Amino acid sequence: MVELPLGFRAHVANIGIKDETDDFVVIAAERPCPAAAVFTQSLFSGASVIVSREHIADRSLQAFVVISKNSNVATGKEGMDNAREIVTAVASALGAAEGDLLIASTGVIGRQYPMDRVRRHLTSLKAPFVGRDAQAAARAIMTTDTHPKLAHASVGKASIVDIAKGVGMIEPDMATLITLFLTDAEIDGEVLDKVFRSVIARTFNAVSVDTDTSTSDTAAIMASGAAGPVDEATFAEALLDVALALTKMIARDGEGATKLIEVLVDGARDDSQAKRVAKSIVNSPLVKTAVHGADPNWGRVAMAVGKCWDDRDINQERVVIRFGELEVYPQRVDEDGLDQLGKYMSGDTVRIHVSLGVATGSFIVYGCDLSDGYVRINANYTT
Amino acid sequence: MVELPLGFRAHVANIGIKDETDDFVVIAAERPCPAAAVFTQSLFSGASVIVSREHIADRSLQAFVVISKNSNVATGKEGMDNAREIVTAVASALGAAEGDLLIASTGVIGRQYPMDRVRRHLTSLKAPFVGRDAQAAARAIMTTDTHPKLAHASVGKASIVDIAKGVGMIEPDMATLITLFLTDAEIDGEVLDKVFRSVIARTFNAVSVDTDTSTSDTAAIMASGAAGPVDEATFAEALLDVALALTKMIARDGEGATKLIEVLVDGARDDSQAKRVAKSIVNSPLVKTAVHGADPNWGRVAMAVGKCWDDRDINQERVVIRFGELEVYPQRVDEDGLDQLGKYMSGDTVRIHVSLGVATGSFIVYGCDLSDGYVRINANYTT
Repeated sequence: MVELPLGFRAHVANIGIKDETDDFVVIAAERPCPAAAVFTQSLFSGASVIVSREHIADRSLQAFVVISKNSNVATGKEGMDNAREIVTAVASALGAAEGDLLIASTGVIGRQYPMDRVRRHLTSLKAPFVGRDAQAAARAIMTTDTHPKLAHASVGKASIVDIAKGVGMIEPDMATLITLFLTDAEIDGEVLDKVFRSVIARTFNAVSVDTDTSTSDTAAIMASGAAGPVDEATFAEALLDVALALTKMIARDGEGATKLIEVLVDGARDDSQAKRVAKSIVNSPLVKTAVHGADPNWGRVAMAVGKCWDDRDINQERVVIRFGELEVYPQRVDEDGLDQLGKYMSGDTVRIHVSLGVATGSFIVYGCDLSDGYVRINANYTT
Repeated sequence: MVELPLGFRAHVANIGIKDETDDFVVIAAERPCPAAAVFTQSLFSGASVIVSREHIADRSLQAFVVISKNSNVATGKEGMDNAREIVTAVASALGAAEGDLLIASTGVIGRQYPMDRVRRHLTSLKAPFVGRDAQAAARAIMTTDTHPKLAHASVGKASIVDIAKGVGMIEPDMATLITLFLTDAEIDGEVLDKVFRSVIARTFNAVSVDTDTSTSDTAAIMASGAAGPVDEATFAEALLDVALALTKMIARDGEGATKLIEVLVDGARDDSQAKRVAKSIVNSPLVKTAVHGADPNWGRVAMAVGKCWDDRDINQERVVIRFGELEVYPQRVDEDGLDQLGKYMSGDTVRIHVSLGVATGSFIVYGCDLSDGYVRINANYTT
C-alpha cells in the first residue's frame, strides 16, 4: 500500500452519484497548509473550478474534495449552489474554514448532482478520518480510466504522492484531468506555487490525447510540513519525476491508445516555439494514425511542422526529422535502417525528434496514437 | 457531359506517375487571361506551390498543369528543377510564356517524379488541344477521392466550371486540396482577384476534415472572356454557389466520412471570432465522433466553445446551442423533442448552430464526422 504523506488522512466512499463504485474522496490535513493549484482556462469552466479558484487565491488549503462521474458543468446557479453547499458541509465536519477547501468534479456535463443522496452522506461525515491508502483515493477519482494512477517519490525524510485520473475525454462526455499532489515536506507557500507551476507546465500541461480541453481540469498540491524542511532543488526534481511519471501513464491510458508518443522539438527560437511545433505534431490525426499503424511516415511530420505558418523563421531546408535516433529527413534511411525503423515503430513508445535549426529552444510533449478504439468509445456512447 | 467554358481546351493523359489511371491534366486558354489563385500557407510548401506563387503574381495565366499521385513536396533542389522543367516543356508546346502557367501536384511526399516517363510524354505533347470534357479533367486530378468533383453555373451568357479533388488527407500521405475554376466571363483581373478571394474565404477556406493542412493546397481561376461581359454581383453570386457546392461535396467525401457537418456561429463579436469558434467545434474529435454516433451530445459543443479561451467576451450564460432548429442549451428538450432530435442526428447532414450573444458577427464552416474508417485508411497505409 502506498500511504499518504504524513499529516494527511482520507475519506473514500460511494455516495450514489452514478453507480456503486467509490465516487467521493476527501483528503484532509490537520490544519491549513501551503498549497498551489492550476485550473482549466475553459470559458465553460465548471462550478467546482469557479469555487476552487476563489479558495486557492490565498495559497492555503486544508482539504481536497473530489466527486467523480458528474462534472457539475453547465448546471447554472443550481450547480454553483450545490458546489458551495457541499464545501460548507465538509468544512463543518472537518472544523475547517470553507475557504480552505478545494473541490474538483469530473464526469457528465449538464446534469445536477443527486443532492438528496449527497446530503444524506454529508450528514454522516465524521472527522478526523483514519484512511491512509493513496491507492484507494486514486481509485475513487476514476471515471472510465482503465486503472488507478499514482506516483510517489522521497525527498529526504519527506515524500510526495500524486494521484491523477483521466485524460482527453476519458469520461465520454468531456475532457477531465484531475491531479492531486500531497507532500509532508515543509515548504513555503510562495516557493511551492512557483515550483508547482513550473513542473505542471512541463508535465500535465504538455500532454494531449485529442486536442479537446476539459471544462474541469484541476491540478493541486498541499504541503503538510509534517516531515520537516527539504532542499528546494531536490524537492523540485522529485516533484518533476512524480508528475512526469503520471503524465506518461495518462497519455498511455488515453482513450483507445496503444502507444505513448513523445515529441521533442529542439533548435527552436525559444521554448514556446518548440512547444507550439511539438503540439502541432502530437495532435495531428495523421501523425497519430501513422504511429498507430507503425508507419514511419515522416511526410506527415513535415506537414505538421509546415502548418505552424506563423513561425516564418522555420525553413524546411534546415529542419531535421528523426524517429528515435534515426534520421529520416533530409537524410533518408538505407535498407538496414528501414528494418531498424520498422522495429522501432512497432514498439509501445515512439519518440519523434524534430530539430528546427533556428536557435536553442526546446520542449517535449506527450500524447498517444489514434485508434479505432477512440472512435468506438466516443461514437457508441449515447447521452 | 459538362463542357469547359468557351475559350478553354484540355489535355488529359496517363504519364505513369503511379499506375494506369489518368494523372496529368493541362487546361489551356487561347491566350493569357485574367486569373487569381491562393495557396497553402505551409512552411513545407511543395515545389509546385512555390513556382505557381511566382507565376500568379501578375494576375495573368494561360494554363493550369496538374500532376496527381505525387506531390513533389520535400524533394529539395531536384524537385524544384523538375517542376520548372515540366512548366517549360508545356509552355513550349502551347507557345505560351512559362510565367503564364500554374502547376499543382498532389500525392505522396518526399519522392521525385519519374522524370524519364514524364519527359517521354512531354516530348509528344501537341497543342492546340481538342478536349472539352470537364468531367475527364476532374477525374484525372483525383487521388483517393471516391468520385470526381465538379460543379458549374451560368452567369448570363457565360458559365463557371469548378473541378476539385481531395480534402484533409485523401491521399494517405498528405492533405491535398486542389480546386480549379474556369469561366468564359469577361472580367477584369483585379475584380476577379477580389471576388475570388472573398468566395474562397467562405467556402474552401471554411472546410476541414481533420485539422491537418496540406503542403500543396491550390485554388485558382482563369477567365477567358470568350462569352463577353457579365454583371459583377451576379458573377460573384454564381461563383459562391459553385464553390459552396464543391466545398460540401468535399467535406462529405472526407476520409471515412458518413455525414456532412455544418457549424453556424452567430452573435459573435465579429466574423473572425465566429469562424474561430465554429472551427473549434467542427474540428473537435469529440464532437465529430458524437455526430458519427448520432448522439446529440451538446456538452461536447459547450466544451469546444469553452476552449476558445482567448475570447474572454464569451459568457457561458449567454450562449445558446441548437442542433438543427432545436435548442438544447440552456433550454433542454422535452420528451417529444428528444424523438425529433434523435431523428435529426441520424440524418446525413447535421447543422450545429451556436449563438454567442456578444454582437452580430457570423460564419459557417463545413466538416465531417470522424469514423473508424478514417483511422483504418490512415493507419493501415504503409509508406
